[in-house]
Amino acid sequence: MSRRTALGPGDDCAILAPSRAPRLFTIDSMVEDVHFRLGWGTPEKLGAKSLAVNLSDIAAMGGRPTACVVNLAVRAGLDMRFFERLYAGMRSLARATKVDIVGGNVTRADKLGITVALLGEVGAAAMRRDSARPGDEIFVTGTLGDSALGLRILAGKLSAPGKTRRALVERHLSPTARLAAGLALARMRPVPTAIDISDGLVQDLGHIAERSEVGAEIDATQIPVSKEYRTVMGDDLSLALGGGEDYELLFCLRPGRSEAELGRRLGVQVRRIGTIVRGRRVLVRNARGRTQPEVAGWDQLRGRL
Amino acid sequence: MSRRTALGPGDDCAILAPSRAPRLFTIDSMVEDVHFRLGWGTPEKLGAKSLAVNLSDIAAMGGRPTACVVNLAVRAGLDMRFFERLYAGMRSLARATKVDIVGGNVTRADKLGITVALLGEVGAAAMRRDSARPGDEIFVTGTLGDSALGLRILAGKLSAPGKTRRALVERHLSPTARLAAGLALARMRPVPTAIDISDGLVQDLGHIAERSEVGAEIDATQIPVSKEYRTVMGDDLSLALGGGEDYELLFCLRPGRSEAELGRRLGVQVRRIGTIVRGRRVLVRNARGRTQPEVAGWDQLRGRL
Repeated sequence: MSRRTALGPGDDCAILAPSRAPRLFTIDSMVEDVHFRLGWGTPEKLGAKSLAVNLSDIAAMGGRPTACVVNLAVRAGLDMRFFERLYAGMRSLARATKVDIVGGNVTRADKLGITVALLGEVGAAAMRRDSARPGDEIFVTGTLGDSALGLRILAGKLSAPGKTRRALVERHLSPTARLAAGLALARMRPVPTAIDISDGLVQDLGHIAERSEVGAEIDATQIPVSKEYRTVMGDDLSLALGGGEDYELLFCLRPGRSEAELGRRLGVQVRRIGTIVRGRRVLVRNARGRTQPEVAGWDQLRGRL
Repeated sequence: MSRRTALGPGDDCAILAPSRAPRLFTIDSMVEDVHFRLGWGTPEKLGAKSLAVNLSDIAAMGGRPTACVVNLAVRAGLDMRFFERLYAGMRSLARATKVDIVGGNVTRADKLGITVALLGEVGAAAMRRDSARPGDEIFVTGTLGDSALGLRILAGKLSAPGKTRRALVERHLSPTARLAAGLALARMRPVPTAIDISDGLVQDLGHIAERSEVGAEIDATQIPVSKEYRTVMGDDLSLALGGGEDYELLFCLRPGRSEAELGRRLGVQVRRIGTIVRGRRVLVRNARGRTQPEVAGWDQLRGRL
């Protein structure tokens, strides 16, 4: 526990020291047979991922995570060793990202479920979804679609050669929240517009479009994909556009920043993929013209493993 | 939303204004067929209760609740109207207790589950579980065992005449978090030791005993029960001692306070039920002597509806 935590687990509530910074607050959940199947990865990776998906929300606002509470829904058939390993994975990522796990609750259920509520702090200005303007350039960190491919491999819907398979599966099981990139972005002025890509590029860009009351045009040739993605998908960009669970940052800036400058600043590969325009629609431009993509993204209410 | 909330739902995180007070942080969950069955009460009552069980944790620390995030695990077969009503019930209690619902997340699941993570603020000193000393007197608010009876009536394991039935069922479906009593208690010096009774009197007193490294002796003749409890249970105190989900406050004070004075101060009936002693055991004294009660309390991992 850091000095920010006055009282950790074991009482009715945790007590956190006062803080002068505005606070961020978010919650996210992973449910067995909806978001994961047991046996796909280790309990440690599952524990870490259930924290990482929340860290990604803090990263998207440009904040620093501080403290979390965990609700564990446990089912019959899982032994204490399983939960020790799950918790060890979560604790290890928490330590690496300076998060105190300050409390929790355990309940019975039919399926394993891990819900994390995470607090963070943010400096003078948080990055929001509602500040994009026509003319802004749209950027994305890392590569897209790898996690969706890893999921399909794990679900037995797709096969890939050994090394490719391992790389894609790892992207799915162990996503990296772009915390350092988020902090670097939030120091820029004017403050960028940002979101993390959890539902899929087109759907999450749609969230920026909706909240900012703008449209967006993506250049399909600029979508960053990994060599593993190319190996499996060739020129098919559908999972890079709508796969989901990338946990990369999607952000919009006033024009004039180079990919190279941003990459140095953020410590991660950055690609310019399009432009904010008037209107409300998210369009993808490729050799055949501009189309409104039909990718549904990862809609959690309809999604199937 | 209050002025404490700079940005509510709709972005990656909520943004809360800075605060100079120490903060409380807690999480609790209600799962279908573990904590409730649909059809037992209205969706509104279910929504309110899933917030109330968290408010009770803030009350037990002597704090003021401020903001919450909600994770909703939804299953097939429940329509939008159901969730609107559930949310209306939660929002209504949130408004009454000055809580901002600042964010949420929705996931699919096999069973309905409502998880609330709640923040609060606390004044100079929070009430903890670890400060009881031998000689302290043990008090409890309200009456005990009603909720456990209501649960058994709802589960069809018990019957009761109409008015009694309705009163007991209502105690189970619509618990009241003792927020005002908690605030009043936390202003006393020395700061009381406190916990809310969610697992059952004996089990929760055991939590105080464990954290404070003391024992406790309860006088069975002083356990407060309602006339509805007497109607159904007669002299059997087992559900008052170990029923659970009372959401009353259990607290320990240096000797010398009268029930009447405390009742006025806390705005609720207060009963002195025993004394903190040396040792580690929680004993119940009745006409036949002192015994270690066998009530297991509401152990969520073993409990069955």
